[in-house]
Amino acid sequence: MTTMEQRATMKAKITAPGDREVRIERIFNAPRDRVWRAMTDPKLIAQWWGRGNKLVIERYELERGGHWRFVEHSDHGEHGFEGRFAEITPPERVVQTFEWDGLPGHTALETMTLEDLSDGRTRLVTTSLFLTREDRDGMLQSGMESGVNESYAALDRVLASMG
Amino acid sequence: MTTMEQRATMKAKITAPGDREVRIERIFNAPRDRVWRAMTDPKLIAQWWGRGNKLVIERYELERGGHWRFVEHSDHGEHGFEGRFAEITPPERVVQTFEWDGLPGHTALETMTLEDLSDGRTRLVTTSLFLTREDRDGMLQSGMESGVNESYAALDRVLASMG
Repeated sequence: MTTMEQRATMKAKITAPGDREVRIERIFNAPRDRVWRAMTDPKLIAQWWGRGNKLVIERYELERGGHWRFVEHSDHGEHGFEGRFAEITPPERVVQTFEWDGLPGHTALETMTLEDLSDGRTRLVTTSLFLTREDRDGMLQSGMESGVNESYAALDRVLASMG
Repeated sequence: MTTMEQRATMKAKITAPGDREVRIERIFNAPRDRVWRAMTDPKLIAQWWGRGNKLVIERYELERGGHWRFVEHSDHGEHGFEGRFAEITPPERVVQTFEWDGLPGHTALETMTLEDLSDGRTRLVTTSLFLTREDRDGMLQSGMESGVNESYAALDRVLASMG
């Protein structure tokens, strides 16, 4: 298997611990500082978050209490997502809320951590805590798995281009 | 006891059902349509929500997905509060998120209902669902009881002035 093929088959590990959580784990072939930059620089986020769809970053205030808002433009229309930063600890941890315009009020709290694996790779773990079990299960059934994997495949490409 | 004294001694009933909820119940001496107006017209909200403190309503988009943001100015400084409307059903129900700037990410989902008691009075019930038990308990310990009672006493006065 070539490196390209390995990368193409890398999948995020998605689990649903407890009643109200979704946990996503994924290893990236890039050092932690580079992953941090790709995940917190709006110009770079715009290159992967939308999985190939145009992403307009309307707001991105990377500080405690700051707001973020992304609008993804696809053939099927526009989808807005937004939230607020609760904690920023470079280069290893971001806590933020997440809400999709289609379901206002169904807010989740996301805790994202980056672990330096000391071999040039980085482990991402994101835990999302929902207000209700129904919100959590709805998210799992929304096609999030393919969406997450498409975004992270695009992020792989951004990370490689930064190398 | 005079009507004025009865009004002055009226307290909200605040309980903490389950692990993550706060429930507030309060009866107002005004018909439901009037209570609805006082609770959803920004000019009227500004007269009671801040309990006598200046309240700047920076944003108030009373529709599904709309945002609201209030800043209360007191001798102790400024306090911002904000959220998003999830459901609006006049004159009886509003569902919205609630967040205090001091604890970004500690979002609660508030469901407010107004019940017409058919005798010129209205029962308000607000249930707040927090992400964690710690958030709920922190809210209970924050002095919310006196804050809620002060706001509702001011709302009594606004309702009387609308009569």
